[in-house]
Amino acid sequence: MIVFHLNLLFGGGVMTISDIATVNYDDILLAAKNIDGIAHKTPVLSSTQLNKSLNASVFFKCENFQRGGAFKFRGASNAITQLSPDQKARGVVAYSSGNHAQAVALAASLNGVEATIVMPSDAPSIKLAATRGYGAKVVLYDRATESREEIAAALGKQYGLSVIPPFDHPHVIAGQGTAALELIEEAGPLDYLFVCVGGGGLLSGSAIAAKSLHPDVVVVGVEPALGNDAQQSLQAGRIVSIDLPNTIADGAQTMAVGKITFPIMQSLVKEIITVTDDELCKQMRFFAERMKIVVEPTGCLAAAGVSSGKIDLSNAKVGVIVSGGNVDPTFFAKCISV
Amino acid sequence: MIVFHLNLLFGGGVMTISDIATVNYDDILLAAKNIDGIAHKTPVLSSTQLNKSLNASVFFKCENFQRGGAFKFRGASNAITQLSPDQKARGVVAYSSGNHAQAVALAASLNGVEATIVMPSDAPSIKLAATRGYGAKVVLYDRATESREEIAAALGKQYGLSVIPPFDHPHVIAGQGTAALELIEEAGPLDYLFVCVGGGGLLSGSAIAAKSLHPDVVVVGVEPALGNDAQQSLQAGRIVSIDLPNTIADGAQTMAVGKITFPIMQSLVKEIITVTDDELCKQMRFFAERMKIVVEPTGCLAAAGVSSGKIDLSNAKVGVIVSGGNVDPTFFAKCISV
Repeated sequence: MIVFHLNLLFGGGVMTISDIATVNYDDILLAAKNIDGIAHKTPVLSSTQLNKSLNASVFFKCENFQRGGAFKFRGASNAITQLSPDQKARGVVAYSSGNHAQAVALAASLNGVEATIVMPSDAPSIKLAATRGYGAKVVLYDRATESREEIAAALGKQYGLSVIPPFDHPHVIAGQGTAALELIEEAGPLDYLFVCVGGGGLLSGSAIAAKSLHPDVVVVGVEPALGNDAQQSLQAGRIVSIDLPNTIADGAQTMAVGKITFPIMQSLVKEIITVTDDELCKQMRFFAERMKIVVEPTGCLAAAGVSSGKIDLSNAKVGVIVSGGNVDPTFFAKCISV
Repeated sequence: MIVFHLNLLFGGGVMTISDIATVNYDDILLAAKNIDGIAHKTPVLSSTQLNKSLNASVFFKCENFQRGGAFKFRGASNAITQLSPDQKARGVVAYSSGNHAQAVALAASLNGVEATIVMPSDAPSIKLAATRGYGAKVVLYDRATESREEIAAALGKQYGLSVIPPFDHPHVIAGQGTAALELIEEAGPLDYLFVCVGGGGLLSGSAIAAKSLHPDVVVVGVEPALGNDAQQSLQAGRIVSIDLPNTIADGAQTMAVGKITFPIMQSLVKEIITVTDDELCKQMRFFAERMKIVVEPTGCLAAAGVSSGKIDLSNAKVGVIVSGGNVDPTFFAKCISV
């Protein structure tokens, strides 16, 4: 078993990750054990045409086929599995722009735990319906004026519910890291790993998994051009908050990365690049036309980063996390028709 | 090894299949060997939601992920593999409404064989482009006024090319049967197997594979309501020809089933049901929204037959062949937006 020690530059001093958060490679291995037989081992697909045009070998880890339609089920399941019997009996509360909501609702339901989900009133209708379909109670809030964290915290306090945050929690991060673990188990060592960035849960978990297995892998984050808070944060060396970004990548409409995810990204992520909504639509069309898969805009971020040509990938072996496929069919149709 | 003997009522007398065509279970096993490592072993997917709503277990064999985007690659590869070195050196010619064209072009290219493809001038642009992209020469014809068989036969005669027909050839039928073979290997014995019908190559090959493994399985063909020549033929006890059918299922726009496929269907297929274009669009949307896969209209026939409720599938284990995913993204977008 490989144990990975993170040496992080944070707040001016060198500290190991255990000083700021308990996320290491062992946690990811534990998460893999916790979700084994519950989460799907999603397929890894490739495209001969794309490989030819890039002169590279690209492996897509297709989390759009994950339970609940996105990687979020991994972190949610891992977090709920690790609750005490008493915590499980009282129930959980989560806040989410969509996929984490469905993931917590489904993972809770499978564990016989009651879930309350705080969701933005403008979330895609497919995501609201799916969350309710999994048996969760949905509480709506206004993304522009209200704080979902505060609403969830208040509900947690009032009813004794455990909060399952969308990204900034060690068990959530460890769970998300299992997608990269499986990808590398199947595809072998990678030269590059491209991962989308919202709050940084998937990116930091993936980075820990990938760099622990092969320290030479270059981990690249990809976020929407109009919502590049993670890129700004890495450049500034501190967490930069932005206004609610206007992008079709609704899963990456975060205004700031997490306090736990940020130092992990600082330590392990080489760089963060951005792509436009037009590039996301083009990528959605490519996935549909050439690979026969439906991928939501946020799920196209990492792949669009690969296709953008911003990083020379000639002769490289490249892993890409396709994060999810929960997109309203009519909106999807509009995007791929452009 | 199971050898399956077909007892066919044909032309008034009882005859074994070897009297009319050399297609039996051994041919399918040989085809499986011939295409091993060349064709993809496509995934078998299921939908918890659909299973709940039907109170059944439905297994989708996803040939939209096959090389060339459809099951046709199986039959084409098997047929080309079995050509003599001399025949391979002279090249092949095929006629097709689309997927068979791409399949022959790709299989020929992989075998270093030159391919000429006779395609209807109104074939989807994605299919014309893909066929040319595989390095084949494309000859266009008018579907309403010209005979593709005659054009191909003339080219074959003139240039010494071997004709690879889209369905009515023992090696093609045997190749197509390998999809059902793999499905049953993975899912286990089935109560029902639903397969789309164009010329009947996939249906007859699938029926031989399935009934050889488990004689009790009920094999159901599904064709477009406006192109139900196979249904009419089984009812009449003879091959009924129809006018060019008007349906979005372009892969099932055949005017008559084959001389080899028909008696196999008579012997092994319980019944043929039909679905409308609206039901196909609804099925496309379901596949996109719930299963995150892109399926072409023809590929939705069998699944739409399952969803139609025309056959009571309560508590049944049901196999479905999803035949392909080659659909123009803009047309696909239009269908799923309805």
